[in-house]
Amino acid sequence: MTDRRKSFGSDNHAGAHPDVLRALSVATEGDATSYGDDPVTRQTAARLRELAGAAEAYFVFNGTGANVFGLSLMLRPFQAVVCPESSHLYEDECGAAERIIGSKLLTVATPDGKLTPELIASRLGDRGDEHRAQPHAVAIAQITEFGTCYSLDELDAISGFCRDQGLLLFIDGARLANAAAHLDCGIADIAVHADVLTFGGTKNGAIVAEAVLVMNPALVAEAPFQRKQLMQLASKMRFVAAQFAALLDGELWLRNARHANAMASRLAAAVGAVPGIELAQPVQGNAVFAILDSKQAARLQETWNFGFYGGQPGGRSLVRWMAAFDTGPADVDAFAADIAAAASAGPAG
Amino acid sequence: MTDRRKSFGSDNHAGAHPDVLRALSVATEGDATSYGDDPVTRQTAARLRELAGAAEAYFVFNGTGANVFGLSLMLRPFQAVVCPESSHLYEDECGAAERIIGSKLLTVATPDGKLTPELIASRLGDRGDEHRAQPHAVAIAQITEFGTCYSLDELDAISGFCRDQGLLLFIDGARLANAAAHLDCGIADIAVHADVLTFGGTKNGAIVAEAVLVMNPALVAEAPFQRKQLMQLASKMRFVAAQFAALLDGELWLRNARHANAMASRLAAAVGAVPGIELAQPVQGNAVFAILDSKQAARLQETWNFGFYGGQPGGRSLVRWMAAFDTGPADVDAFAADIAAAASAGPAG
Amino acid sequence: MTDRRKSFGSDNHAGAHPDVLRALSVATEGDATSYGDDPVTRQTAARLRELAGAAEAYFVFNGTGANVFGLSLMLRPFQAVVCPESSHLYEDECGAAERIIGSKLLTVATPDGKLTPELIASRLGDRGDEHRAQPHAVAIAQITEFGTCYSLDELDAISGFCRDQGLLLFIDGARLANAAAHLDCGIADIAVHADVLTFGGTKNGAIVAEAVLVMNPALVAEAPFQRKQLMQLASKMRFVAAQFAALLDGELWLRNARHANAMASRLAAAVGAVPGIELAQPVQGNAVFAILDSKQAARLQETWNFGFYGGQPGGRSLVRWMAAFDTGPADVDAFAADIAAAASAGPAG
Amino acid sequence: MTDRRKSFGSDNHAGAHPDVLRALSVATEGDATSYGDDPVTRQTAARLRELAGAAEAYFVFNGTGANVFGLSLMLRPFQAVVCPESSHLYEDECGAAERIIGSKLLTVATPDGKLTPELIASRLGDRGDEHRAQPHAVAIAQITEFGTCYSLDELDAISGFCRDQGLLLFIDGARLANAAAHLDCGIADIAVHADVLTFGGTKNGAIVAEAVLVMNPALVAEAPFQRKQLMQLASKMRFVAAQFAALLDGELWLRNARHANAMASRLAAAVGAVPGIELAQPVQGNAVFAILDSKQAARLQETWNFGFYGGQPGGRSLVRWMAAFDTGPADVDAFAADIAAAASAGPAG
Repeated sequence: MTDRRKSFGSDNHAGAHPDVLRALSVATEGDATSYGDDPVTRQTAARLRELAGAAEAYFVFNGTGANVFGLSLMLRPFQAVVCPESSHLYEDECGAAERIIGSKLLTVATPDGKLTPELIASRLGDRGDEHRAQPHAVAIAQITEFGTCYSLDELDAISGFCRDQGLLLFIDGARLANAAAHLDCGIADIAVHADVLTFGGTKNGAIVAEAVLVMNPALVAEAPFQRKQLMQLASKMRFVAAQFAALLDGELWLRNARHANAMASRLAAAVGAVPGIELAQPVQGNAVFAILDSKQAARLQETWNFGFYGGQPGGRSLVRWMAAFDTGPADVDAFAADIAAAASAGPAG
Repeated sequence: MTDRRKSFGSDNHAGAHPDVLRALSVATEGDATSYGDDPVTRQTAARLRELAGAAEAYFVFNGTGANVFGLSLMLRPFQAVVCPESSHLYEDECGAAERIIGSKLLTVATPDGKLTPELIASRLGDRGDEHRAQPHAVAIAQITEFGTCYSLDELDAISGFCRDQGLLLFIDGARLANAAAHLDCGIADIAVHADVLTFGGTKNGAIVAEAVLVMNPALVAEAPFQRKQLMQLASKMRFVAAQFAALLDGELWLRNARHANAMASRLAAAVGAVPGIELAQPVQGNAVFAILDSKQAARLQETWNFGFYGGQPGGRSLVRWMAAFDTGPADVDAFAADIAAAASAGPAG
Repeated sequence: MTDRRKSFGSDNHAGAHPDVLRALSVATEGDATSYGDDPVTRQTAARLRELAGAAEAYFVFNGTGANVFGLSLMLRPFQAVVCPESSHLYEDECGAAERIIGSKLLTVATPDGKLTPELIASRLGDRGDEHRAQPHAVAIAQITEFGTCYSLDELDAISGFCRDQGLLLFIDGARLANAAAHLDCGIADIAVHADVLTFGGTKNGAIVAEAVLVMNPALVAEAPFQRKQLMQLASKMRFVAAQFAALLDGELWLRNARHANAMASRLAAAVGAVPGIELAQPVQGNAVFAILDSKQAARLQETWNFGFYGGQPGGRSLVRWMAAFDTGPADVDAFAADIAAAASAGPAG
Repeated sequence: MTDRRKSFGSDNHAGAHPDVLRALSVATEGDATSYGDDPVTRQTAARLRELAGAAEAYFVFNGTGANVFGLSLMLRPFQAVVCPESSHLYEDECGAAERIIGSKLLTVATPDGKLTPELIASRLGDRGDEHRAQPHAVAIAQITEFGTCYSLDELDAISGFCRDQGLLLFIDGARLANAAAHLDCGIADIAVHADVLTFGGTKNGAIVAEAVLVMNPALVAEAPFQRKQLMQLASKMRFVAAQFAALLDGELWLRNARHANAMASRLAAAVGAVPGIELAQPVQGNAVFAILDSKQAARLQETWNFGFYGGQPGGRSLVRWMAAFDTGPADVDAFAADIAAAASAGPAG
């Protein structure tokens, strides 16, 4: 990434929102008790609790830490979590959950990264059998790793099913803001379905900040100890909390997410009708998943940064194009033009 | 800490050094590949490798993460680490090492927080006995949790003993800069004794940044995976690396440490001769450990922030007074004056 | 199982072979140093080493202990093991491997419980990517959980592939004797392909005895400590070893396995041509997997003990019929007659 | 141990009681459902529940397995267990508890292997502090590793203190029978104080059999899964249960324990007055701890098997002489005579 073209590779390729950096400069003033016993942390946690209707809010460092810490509140080592095969938790965290919690992850193949009660039910056959890890939680991502977003009705169906089945529900909200923006709802409208969820700050404009929101009051007591033991307790906590304070001010988190989503939609609209380009998933957040000729994709990658997600029949490839809070319309339009040009050039190039 | 008195409670009560914040503002420009594959991270890691003579350098989030990640490169679960009873690793990390690595910590009581070959040898009796956890590493802190600093000769004796015994040496360098400042030596002069060591950025003026320096090349191969699985890999890594870049520029790390050390010495000099105040440890870094009347200490704590480290005979208490990079001479003098006043007021207050 | 009909439910429904019990009565004479430092253990381990060409042999308590102990010698927590979806290790051990070793199990769907180089290769895409658990071992069962047996050529292909790919090979030999009997080869002919394998005693006529054979000398050093820490070291070890001594005497292990295999073949031959009964897998050991009408199967289960392995299209069920070392021809014939009768009675019963 | 002298090295040097072997020969008759769903297991578990007043009883393989399984029902990884420095759990299990449960063991030095409320209280200072592992259970051994036995009053004081402090109580009963014999009380009189305790069969005359008795009904639900995941579930469980059935018949466990205790007392009486021999602990079970000249001890070890427990001032050694269920009076008398002879021979030999 030595040139100036905007990356569509990931929303974590973006820098920080200026307000986040400004908040650090404010937070640095004076001394503060460490490990979260400071006014910035207390106030920001209170704001998050209020925003989500949460019993408690904890700041941690990164998404893997947030996922493992959140799930650690729900699971004993002999208990398992049902999750999509494509979940970040299962695929992209180097086996952290298995190592740290000791639990088995029971995966389900999905066409769009979304679980349903039926798919969850397909992994519940062994409950009560001591030879089998016991499903005790369900983990979904909102929005999903495929850029799709559960509707509130879909969340309602899942959380109702979990309640009926005695399962706890965890939501990986690395892109929770994008989901709220897409659904045009509050964080609380999503959070209410979960026992624990995460709220991603980093991809939304922060530098190093994720929050874990504990909705189920019964899960609060263990949380401070689990966070510390799982190496997620910052000493100068105010600097993590302050990032969230900036995102909460004036609903910056929502503005950032709306903007990123709009840029993804703009891109999808621009390329969706280009012959040879096929949108692989509905665009319900800040990701565009598309299928195009593999050689065209490779040529495009010489100029633009984006991710390859596997081969498809007919010499084609699945790719992901991500928009961030700082992706501009001109970035999108330039990228879309190059995509269209590549597609029209034909496979032979 | 609502008033304006400087905290002597911990060096992590301080805010950030302005250069660190400035570095974040620079680092945010443009996109960067995530997870450390960016120029800031690569260059800063290279500078750390050069500074320490290290095989590799890794950025992580906090001291507990650094300690556990560093030790994870050295230990299998049936192997144990010999460490002082007072070590942060044993006392203050909520059992993270035991849980995450699975290893037993074989503690040794020390008068000053420092191990010696003789003390280490006292825990090696069970090698080869399958019923006992097998000592395989030694963990020391430089400077120690008691503010004492191993001389280079002492480090040489320990590392030589470890080499002879087939033990790996880990150094918790949360305050490594203070040690180098005290010894007036380079980081490499300390690092050369270790197989793995940490280099603390947060207490030295950063906001969320620690480094793990792997000296032993045989321990590098596993490190990227261990860091990720142990939830210590930042997505927007450039913002962690940039903090260290700022500390390295113009040897800011060293200037910060020298200053903090000087402030601790100033405090010790000012109160060391006060009747009723006894320095409990030599001041060899930025910490002053003192013993004074418990009631006087409690009264002093009403105005000043500092830590209580346990009762002593005769109604006295052990306390810790820490200086930070931003502690001023006037802060020290005001505090020293209040200490002297409290001491002269007598126990009855 | 209050009546006298022989169970076809599992080979662990059988009692002990009389020679095994006799061996216990011999082993009990006099005192013996505990934890394996006794003549019976030493001699029996030596015999196992010779039989398999192993670097070392260890006795443990049960199959799950043998599998986890064996794999613990091969894997760091960030490393994964590729195994069939149907493996006992993955399905039937309550997540022991994940909890105890911390590793991810990368499963592959198979039609017959057998991996191939191609199937293994399908899970190796992420090597070198720090976000993914790193495949480092392959685990197969010989014979498999579906009663199928790898030919020596198939083993050769797998072990060659593993060697080329830098993967270690683990063989779950809970029914290793049945495999050797089926292939008419020595234990060593199978063992030579593995880095570590288990040799099941319990299903072969013992009461509580499994062995772990370490073929790869580089994996021996950690083994005594791992066995102890994994709670698999017997204090009165001679009583575990003596069971294996009995199985080794006069190749009882082979005679037992040949007999059990022959009984399974006899059953398959008797029912294979019955209309409505379909053999689901080739019979290559002591298991018969069959598909029959679900109502017939349920009715048969009222009288005979056997296991249900899932529904099939058309109101049919997959079932497993296991023969043991003490299954008699008359048992098989009576069972086969009842199966045929049930099948001819028709679904309506 | 090639000669015929009775070992005083450990009660696990003994073979099996004949009744235990006979019970195996009975248990082998006919088929039985595996994994404990058989009449022998059900009935024997019921007898143990009745004997101890337990909510549930589980059979496992060995003492380390029993301890770790029992404690796993009580502890989350951030919770710690207070135990004597001399406990088998801490000293002799290769760090199994730390690895498997993830918990820290908070040790207390004791003169006699026994905790008291005061000693326990000394490790409770950090409750509520997220930086410290949280004491949540207390583990004692009855009888202790020093051969001492808690009186019922002492147990009452400890269990009352634990109840008041919200701590769970675990009792390692590897030699529980010897305690009941010494106290002349029932198993239930001891068990009532515990939340979970173990009942050792192996040292009492079995070959491979320990029981875990769960007294606290709230801890039962997780137990079957923990036992399986911790690799302690026998497939041919009837053979483990049958050993306990034999020990329960006619109170064989009590007769064995009384005999072993009597033999230890006989030995202590015979050597206690020998000049140069000092009893280091009161004899309250089947162990005699004595201090004698190191050279005399070494010479004695050429003929007799016993354990060395560390050097003492003045060229003397602490040794342990254990009696077993099958130690005869003549064995004791011959050993005592040799001890006296060695002592009178003087250090020069």
